[in-house]
Amino acid sequence: MRANVQPEPIDIAELDTLVDLPRAGAQVSFVGRVRTHDAGRGVEKLEYSSHPTANAEALRIANEVLRRSEGVCAIAITHRVGCLDIGEAAVVCAISAEHRGQAFEACRELVERVKHELPIWKHQTFTDGTDEWVGSA
Amino acid sequence: MRANVQPEPIDIAELDTLVDLPRAGAQVSFVGRVRTHDAGRGVEKLEYSSHPTANAEALRIANEVLRRSEGVCAIAITHRVGCLDIGEAAVVCAISAEHRGQAFEACRELVERVKHELPIWKHQTFTDGTDEWVGSA
Repeated sequence: MRANVQPEPIDIAELDTLVDLPRAGAQVSFVGRVRTHDAGRGVEKLEYSSHPTANAEALRIANEVLRRSEGVCAIAITHRVGCLDIGEAAVVCAISAEHRGQAFEACRELVERVKHELPIWKHQTFTDGTDEWVGSA
Repeated sequence: MRANVQPEPIDIAELDTLVDLPRAGAQVSFVGRVRTHDAGRGVEKLEYSSHPTANAEALRIANEVLRRSEGVCAIAITHRVGCLDIGEAAVVCAISAEHRGQAFEACRELVERVKHELPIWKHQTFTDGTDEWVGSA
């Protein structure tokens, strides 16, 4: 298992490899990317800031989902911080399980918990010159 | 969009790249792999056979999900045929959408339809010497 927050670009294939275990028949991965638009406004750039506890929180979430979800074999989460360009991966959650239903359900839960519980804030600058902070956690 | 059936190993990263469009904020990928066990029996080897219409059927499924699912930007499906080793990817479904809920729901639907509607049959040989055909479609 891996769960971390990092300023470096996320190596998606590496996370997929980390959860690839022989008993796992199903693997589901989620990639959240910086979009060109958010609620109708054009996005020019985006910066993520994290609280120092973010790494420990990511690990806690991964451990809880791994322990509670039936059939789940492995979990990997990475959230990017710092300035990101349009199209770059901001968060990747990969999960493997014995069966596909288990993998889909656990990955969905993992993504929702990462989005709502990780202490990470997003600062968006729009093409119209305005900007906003979007709180997480 | 791509949807095909092939004897060559599946390049998972290539399918992910195919669905990576600038307006897509969420990407969900499913990888189904040959497992070491199936319903308690050890799997030694596995062979997939397909009907000549399998390529056209994969394309039909991808088109239908793309047309009917809100927010979906792109879809890629590849199903492997021939003899596979334990751990190899048998099927990969990748999807991108504007939002994560849309991506998860459409990917789940896509995988279920591929599993139930593609005319592909699986022949499993078990470590106890027995074997079985598992019908698809």
